[in-house]
Amino acid sequence: MCVLDVRYCHVLKRPRPQDDSIRAAMPSKARIGVLGASGYTGAELLRLLLAHPRVDIALLTAERRANHEVRDVFPQFAPYSLPKLVAVDDVDWVGATLDLVFCALPHSTTQKVVKRVLAEAPAVKVVDLSADFRLADVAVYAKWYGHEHHAPELQSQAVYGLVEVYRRDIKHAHLVANPGCYTTCAQLPLVPLLKAKAIDPDEIVVDAKSGMTGAGRAVKEEMVFAEVSEGMHAYGVGRHRHMPELDQEFSRAAGRAVTVSFTPHLIPMNRGILSTIYVRGRRGRAAPELHAILDKAYAKEPFVHVLPLGQMPQTRHVRGSNMTFIGVAADRTAGRAIIVSALDNLTKGASGQAVQNMNVMLGYPETLGLTQPAMFP
Amino acid sequence: MCVLDVRYCHVLKRPRPQDDSIRAAMPSKARIGVLGASGYTGAELLRLLLAHPRVDIALLTAERRANHEVRDVFPQFAPYSLPKLVAVDDVDWVGATLDLVFCALPHSTTQKVVKRVLAEAPAVKVVDLSADFRLADVAVYAKWYGHEHHAPELQSQAVYGLVEVYRRDIKHAHLVANPGCYTTCAQLPLVPLLKAKAIDPDEIVVDAKSGMTGAGRAVKEEMVFAEVSEGMHAYGVGRHRHMPELDQEFSRAAGRAVTVSFTPHLIPMNRGILSTIYVRGRRGRAAPELHAILDKAYAKEPFVHVLPLGQMPQTRHVRGSNMTFIGVAADRTAGRAIIVSALDNLTKGASGQAVQNMNVMLGYPETLGLTQPAMFP
Amino acid sequence: MCVLDVRYCHVLKRPRPQDDSIRAAMPSKARIGVLGASGYTGAELLRLLLAHPRVDIALLTAERRANHEVRDVFPQFAPYSLPKLVAVDDVDWVGATLDLVFCALPHSTTQKVVKRVLAEAPAVKVVDLSADFRLADVAVYAKWYGHEHHAPELQSQAVYGLVEVYRRDIKHAHLVANPGCYTTCAQLPLVPLLKAKAIDPDEIVVDAKSGMTGAGRAVKEEMVFAEVSEGMHAYGVGRHRHMPELDQEFSRAAGRAVTVSFTPHLIPMNRGILSTIYVRGRRGRAAPELHAILDKAYAKEPFVHVLPLGQMPQTRHVRGSNMTFIGVAADRTAGRAIIVSALDNLTKGASGQAVQNMNVMLGYPETLGLTQPAMFP
Amino acid sequence: MCVLDVRYCHVLKRPRPQDDSIRAAMPSKARIGVLGASGYTGAELLRLLLAHPRVDIALLTAERRANHEVRDVFPQFAPYSLPKLVAVDDVDWVGATLDLVFCALPHSTTQKVVKRVLAEAPAVKVVDLSADFRLADVAVYAKWYGHEHHAPELQSQAVYGLVEVYRRDIKHAHLVANPGCYTTCAQLPLVPLLKAKAIDPDEIVVDAKSGMTGAGRAVKEEMVFAEVSEGMHAYGVGRHRHMPELDQEFSRAAGRAVTVSFTPHLIPMNRGILSTIYVRGRRGRAAPELHAILDKAYAKEPFVHVLPLGQMPQTRHVRGSNMTFIGVAADRTAGRAIIVSALDNLTKGASGQAVQNMNVMLGYPETLGLTQPAMFP
Repeated sequence: MCVLDVRYCHVLKRPRPQDDSIRAAMPSKARIGVLGASGYTGAELLRLLLAHPRVDIALLTAERRANHEVRDVFPQFAPYSLPKLVAVDDVDWVGATLDLVFCALPHSTTQKVVKRVLAEAPAVKVVDLSADFRLADVAVYAKWYGHEHHAPELQSQAVYGLVEVYRRDIKHAHLVANPGCYTTCAQLPLVPLLKAKAIDPDEIVVDAKSGMTGAGRAVKEEMVFAEVSEGMHAYGVGRHRHMPELDQEFSRAAGRAVTVSFTPHLIPMNRGILSTIYVRGRRGRAAPELHAILDKAYAKEPFVHVLPLGQMPQTRHVRGSNMTFIGVAADRTAGRAIIVSALDNLTKGASGQAVQNMNVMLGYPETLGLTQPAMFP
Repeated sequence: MCVLDVRYCHVLKRPRPQDDSIRAAMPSKARIGVLGASGYTGAELLRLLLAHPRVDIALLTAERRANHEVRDVFPQFAPYSLPKLVAVDDVDWVGATLDLVFCALPHSTTQKVVKRVLAEAPAVKVVDLSADFRLADVAVYAKWYGHEHHAPELQSQAVYGLVEVYRRDIKHAHLVANPGCYTTCAQLPLVPLLKAKAIDPDEIVVDAKSGMTGAGRAVKEEMVFAEVSEGMHAYGVGRHRHMPELDQEFSRAAGRAVTVSFTPHLIPMNRGILSTIYVRGRRGRAAPELHAILDKAYAKEPFVHVLPLGQMPQTRHVRGSNMTFIGVAADRTAGRAIIVSALDNLTKGASGQAVQNMNVMLGYPETLGLTQPAMFP
Repeated sequence: MCVLDVRYCHVLKRPRPQDDSIRAAMPSKARIGVLGASGYTGAELLRLLLAHPRVDIALLTAERRANHEVRDVFPQFAPYSLPKLVAVDDVDWVGATLDLVFCALPHSTTQKVVKRVLAEAPAVKVVDLSADFRLADVAVYAKWYGHEHHAPELQSQAVYGLVEVYRRDIKHAHLVANPGCYTTCAQLPLVPLLKAKAIDPDEIVVDAKSGMTGAGRAVKEEMVFAEVSEGMHAYGVGRHRHMPELDQEFSRAAGRAVTVSFTPHLIPMNRGILSTIYVRGRRGRAAPELHAILDKAYAKEPFVHVLPLGQMPQTRHVRGSNMTFIGVAADRTAGRAIIVSALDNLTKGASGQAVQNMNVMLGYPETLGLTQPAMFP
Repeated sequence: MCVLDVRYCHVLKRPRPQDDSIRAAMPSKARIGVLGASGYTGAELLRLLLAHPRVDIALLTAERRANHEVRDVFPQFAPYSLPKLVAVDDVDWVGATLDLVFCALPHSTTQKVVKRVLAEAPAVKVVDLSADFRLADVAVYAKWYGHEHHAPELQSQAVYGLVEVYRRDIKHAHLVANPGCYTTCAQLPLVPLLKAKAIDPDEIVVDAKSGMTGAGRAVKEEMVFAEVSEGMHAYGVGRHRHMPELDQEFSRAAGRAVTVSFTPHLIPMNRGILSTIYVRGRRGRAAPELHAILDKAYAKEPFVHVLPLGQMPQTRHVRGSNMTFIGVAADRTAGRAIIVSALDNLTKGASGQAVQNMNVMLGYPETLGLTQPAMFP
């Protein structure tokens, strides 16, 4: 007969009778909901939450796949015991007694759903993975998304969830807007440099490359395997929706308006974002000084790793982990430097960062459930 | 300041002073060595062991890369605190006070090294990931590997480490021969059917497909990206070295000599083995009965999941997990069935199974550190 | 000023005045139509026809993309001068004065369209790439496709277009049913062996692996990059629609009913099919004799290349070419052999074979426009 | 019996007796040698030359693989009749009576070999695909390659082979230095803009992404499939060997010293380079004006296609063709534009461009043998 690990018994297919007494002695667990569990960020949340020692996955929603089992949508979870998918409109938010929900719904829908959840169950905390609450200025939102914000009163309470920058605010937040994947990858290397006024804010070029999961689980011709494998391209050139989020955060960091040049590309790989960032140092600051600023800024951060000067990161070395790797090198033109940052768009770029936010909001150790190494190869 | 998860403090880059007192209250940890840590199975062992709550990684060896840090060989481990790589010949086996070593060395070398380790430190337990101790008959070894076995006396003590079959023996074993990836993938679906005498042992065709990491980290022209991407091929047709291992185990299960037809293929993906197995039922047994036998055999096994009749597994749904998925369907010819099994060659096919063996050998819960879900997408 | 190659001036973006006089001296060209030019087999037809010295591409149809330029659908053709896409219903079949049309439409639709084309313009020849005219028995068609055949009178005139087998009939055919990709890959190695009664027709296992373009340009979730990259799976196990086509042709070859075991798999690559075929020789015929039969059968065939005994083909070495490579090796069980065949599903498996059929039907040299080597890497 | 296309009979496996008389009526063919035929640029040369109507492949060299058949090195050529590989030192340059040789040898070696060829057979023309003759200033060569140039007297005669810029010189050249793949991709969009003084030469950022064949057929750990699939990275940051070639050509075009910022990346695909280029217009020139300059510059060029303003190229749409696609879009900061260029590194980036040079040098139509469309999907 097989012997099972009681610590992980909540994830096993067959419950064991003695679990309850054992659980009684363990730290309490938060009851968690995932709204939009049938997309890729939903799957990544499940992957991480199933390995997290202090959560119970209590609610999963999915619209088209409501009333299906999770295994019908993501066969990898077949061996795990998980609630059935339900439609978000069918949820009894009071009866669900959730501590926190992750919202991985499409933009615009998100605003309406979060509004209803918080109206009916004001005690529940929300980490939203969409772009719906990231822009502090609802007028900017309306301009880029083509419609008025549906919950401006919530927007004013939302905290931008880049933990490395806003940890203190997140601790007390009720609604956290989880940052975008591209913007996280660009902010982590640039925010400390802008804050230190170490680089020229008017000469920043961010050339970003993303794996295919960055586009979500959308069923479109341009996402079909044979359309996107064995080749690459730029898209949204000059007009990508991540731009206002970058503007907002870079301007906050610099204390003045900043507009960077940003071009995203699609790469034939599942996961990973690599940002190659071209900067000019201010007042003669060269690559070693920029490197030193970043190295110091992140010395104690568990999820940002600054490589030795001149070494460059690869996306595959952060795959599936919540880490961001940053490299800095001198460009051959005096005064210019090249910074490369790499993260997994589904982990630190989305669901891993969301769990990090949850940990902070619930008073858990920030790295809880997030310490697994990257999977390479 | 960031708050860290003390449960995982052994993996963090900066030790914290209060750790010791906390650790004192925790269950004791085994001291583990990994011999051959610079290959892919070595990396996978590190990935799994860093997430395992009851091991301390105390020794790592690598020949060409001796005296380097692990991060020089596998940058994904840069954020973790790990011992420096040393040459296996430089190890003081007594002073190392190890509880167990994983041996991920090339064949033939392995026999010599394991012999020396056990001579100098007889109390240490060994899980060997090479083929060196898998064949009970040293004459068969000599025939397939072209040289005499260097440690026949150890061979007679070695236990074949397919936990689902030999769990009881492994519990008391000192030296466990971890099964091969192809053979694990073929044995898990076939052994219960052969034991039940449910299929004709003379009409088994195993068509196996493997990702590229199955070939190890060998630097050969035929492993270069442009040589193996965007295409596929069979290799070792009629004469692959996994054959004697299959013969041995299938013959043991059937109680008579069994020689299957086995053809491996290389697929342009990193991880995963899929075996498509063509069988003929004995005495009229059709697909539903074969399915029922497997379903029952694995009902309580944590790492083997039998899909509903007619459903078929995909390698991506077990990627990075220790799971094996098995599907059974009727072939269109009466009396014949098609069985498909899928596992991750680096996890259940190598390092995950090795940790599973370790857990059994050390008396730990068998699933400890191995419950993380697969990473898809 | 650049100097252009007059031989290829029909494909250049800017017409040159003197072309007409030069063309006058050249061999006449056939006027060709491609129905369903916006799919992958349509694109492959364009690629091949643009390099063919004796065709004029006179008509291109596409339903959803009617009235668009080809470059809007397939940007790679932007530098070439091609007719605009039109809806198939808008074509004046008499006025179009076509010599031959390739029909790359979905099944069922095909039957109706071909019927209309031949009713209105009886002189036009047709090469149909769908499955609609491949099954001689319309009852078998109805069983597998779920509806009555819409043009049974045409079915009786259709010739099955495997040139290596039916060259003589194709020469005089008016309507040719181009074989399927999987079935071409299985027939080329097996038909000569069945005809020679060299293998047991009841013990054939065909394990087939295909690249993603085999599924066409269908926009379905299961074709999205992240769903199918970095992994593989079997599908249609026991019930794939290519089976009746295999049955028909193998039974014709063997002179008796033959039902093979056939399992298709999807591989993360764009192009290529590899079939691993397990056979038992009759009356003691072993691999060398099977190899000799194939070697002799294809000695003069331009598009089938039999490798030396024991060597195995790779799909990448036929990519983009009209070649089929075949390898034969002994299995380790006496009397059994393993045959592996490889072709490009879009070329020899579809559009290349269609052009080969066209060449035969129009009295052109069979290899005209089809001699380009495979593209590797 | 199969009917063959006499135009292509030189590439078929079995010669036909009547060929000679037919050939007599055809235009004469040049006798061609390929030095270094066992690498990827060698294979691509063979692919293109086998489809070229006016060349005879008369000599193939390969060092490690001397005395092997080409099919042993590149199985895709097995169906073609090609000379055996010989060692370059064993060639009788006078007796070979070649008209032109392509030199695809490693740098440094190249200089010695070309020197010897031209000393022994001064009439033979040379297209060199290495970097050895690209830098006009041998001191710059020595600085970047770490040794004195072995043939400075030949360097002074060498013509830089970017046909779109130096067509007139190439026509009379004896030794042409075929440009690098990265530099071709950057020069085609930038040279006309620099010549027109339309952009600021001091603010150019070239972020380049290349498929894996750009690294050649080198057997190195960092090129192994599992090391480079499913991820990406920058390399040679701030110090890539293509830089002096870019400097030379951009400075020539601008009429003053130009130093661009250039960063190469490796992408998990076989073929293709995409350059994302960030520029600032001079004297208020915006994206539409830059686009107009490029559109006009390339209106009559057969191998450069400028997309409509705002449209962006994809590498897959030029795969296997000799085309370069260029797109131009406004950046969101006034005065800045983003230019993206795409080509196949093995075709226009190496062997296709080499054949284009050959055509010009031999007085053939420039597009001869180079008009095949890209292979997508």
